[in-house]
Amino acid sequence: MDDELRLAIQRIAPLDEAAMRAAEQELDRKTKPRGSLGRLERLAAQYAGIRGDAAPPPLVPAVLVAAADHGYAEDGVSAYPAEVTAQMVKTFAAGGAAICVLAREAGARLVVIDAGVREKVDSPAVRSVRVGGGTANAARGPAMSREQALQAIAAGIGLARELAADGITAVALGEMGIGNTTAASALHASLLGIEPARVCGPGTGLDADGVQAKVSVVERALAANPLSGDDPVDTLAALGGFEIALLTGAILGAASERLAVVLDGFIVGAAALVAARLAPEARAYLIAGTLSPEPGHRLALDELGLDPLLALELRLGEGTGAALALPLLRAAVAILSLA
Amino acid sequence: MDDELRLAIQRIAPLDEAAMRAAEQELDRKTKPRGSLGRLERLAAQYAGIRGDAAPPPLVPAVLVAAADHGYAEDGVSAYPAEVTAQMVKTFAAGGAAICVLAREAGARLVVIDAGVREKVDSPAVRSVRVGGGTANAARGPAMSREQALQAIAAGIGLARELAADGITAVALGEMGIGNTTAASALHASLLGIEPARVCGPGTGLDADGVQAKVSVVERALAANPLSGDDPVDTLAALGGFEIALLTGAILGAASERLAVVLDGFIVGAAALVAARLAPEARAYLIAGTLSPEPGHRLALDELGLDPLLALELRLGEGTGAALALPLLRAAVAILSLA
Repeated sequence: MDDELRLAIQRIAPLDEAAMRAAEQELDRKTKPRGSLGRLERLAAQYAGIRGDAAPPPLVPAVLVAAADHGYAEDGVSAYPAEVTAQMVKTFAAGGAAICVLAREAGARLVVIDAGVREKVDSPAVRSVRVGGGTANAARGPAMSREQALQAIAAGIGLARELAADGITAVALGEMGIGNTTAASALHASLLGIEPARVCGPGTGLDADGVQAKVSVVERALAANPLSGDDPVDTLAALGGFEIALLTGAILGAASERLAVVLDGFIVGAAALVAARLAPEARAYLIAGTLSPEPGHRLALDELGLDPLLALELRLGEGTGAALALPLLRAAVAILSLA
Repeated sequence: MDDELRLAIQRIAPLDEAAMRAAEQELDRKTKPRGSLGRLERLAAQYAGIRGDAAPPPLVPAVLVAAADHGYAEDGVSAYPAEVTAQMVKTFAAGGAAICVLAREAGARLVVIDAGVREKVDSPAVRSVRVGGGTANAARGPAMSREQALQAIAAGIGLARELAADGITAVALGEMGIGNTTAASALHASLLGIEPARVCGPGTGLDADGVQAKVSVVERALAANPLSGDDPVDTLAALGGFEIALLTGAILGAASERLAVVLDGFIVGAAALVAARLAPEARAYLIAGTLSPEPGHRLALDELGLDPLLALELRLGEGTGAALALPLLRAAVAILSLA
């Protein structure tokens, strides 16, 4: 395993139990019946444990959206052509996408990452940490090399460290990449050991035939990549995508820096599955922002022990569900500061 | 029926279908797959229909919290003594309650109403529209007179009109009143025609014996108030509370002024049930902020045709669930203005 990854994993500490207990006691002293704010109180205590501070200052959130292209797209697994990935990254940079509005509404800094879009997007508003110009088609062999996966993970770790150094205390994760629900489906099927047909859904717009085609692509990807052993980095490299690998690193880096990590839907969920396999302690830093309608997402959340805050039938990705959950986390933290 | 009430009901128009369709078309033109923002898009279209504007300016929200005391409290239906109602109103006025923090986080003006607390709360931060010093014990006869119910409703209508005149575009409703989950339970049982045992829950802290005692108080209230005919004002007067009557008026007044109405949990739900019986058209203006753990709440939401945005196991009331849902409505409206 790469040194940077090993170091990040080693630095992930358990939540600060003393801070959590103190926060819980403080919540019980507020002018309200014990526990009457339900999930909001558990969220506040989790955040106190993450930050190691029973009375943390207000949330300082960022939304990190990572984009990449996918060899899977060659097999027509999306309702959209691969060019759309680069177009959307440009739209993010121009402030014209839904996530731009939602990040602004949530008072969050938006960080857009090109982790490996086919055509490089030149914009000062896009951070380039390109691992390649899109992955290879996993239906015919590994999507990327192990070295590329480690490089993307290291980039994600580095970004999380930077955000922490900048004073960010919570990071909401999002993604963009035509074909990436197929990559996420393959990762879910492999990591959870379940049939592709139980994992695959319509993504952002497939009909029943399209879903069936996606199932067979995932089946071929699993067949083309026999995984010996259970190294999650190998699984990620074989079946994943550059943005998923980068988000895996971002989760591990954020946990190592004691940042709260707000997950979006199914694709970010795949990164969380990989991260949790690499470092089970990272799970304590995760907050499930949203439940995706993709059938595999609930299975992943169950495995991760997470209960989503929102269930708004979002199927856009981009981090929209994570950004919409940020005000709930912000409110939970604000309740802690109630006199 | 009172003139003021009749007038408000007459002024409730259906949603503006043209504005809704135009908003939906506008959403379909955004840089995202059709419908991919799920509930958020339906919320945006509803708001456009409420406001009669396909491209409405940003949300201007208020949180209206109405408080009153209840004769039901004499029978020990709450884990707290009746004095707590006045204490909490003072805490609202002093900015020390959870709803104060959540209203501020939501960027909403907080309006605190004394609709009939036992002891008058003197504070410039509390708006007094007292109908009485708490209701009578409904287990022995009507909680209030029909005239008192109409007076409270008229006060609520007037408050909604004032907020509309002040430029408010959405009102989140909340309440405080020791004993008021019992009043709400009685209203639910009567209006929905279901057994008290299926409606009553622990409120803010009863154990199983306490819930059983509440069930028998509701049964006695229903027996002590045989309701002939189906005038919802009579039902409200017999079994309700001053704050619930005021909130009923606030809902009708808000709908008549084309304000979006964000509901809190079970007690505000009782007001919504009464309002919808008086004016079925008002339902189109309602947004269910939160699902209460009280068993009757889901039944009321089903009757109202509403699906809650949040399910965070909140049992505090005060409008906390409604206030927490405001950022979702604000985000939905912001999406409409995306270029």
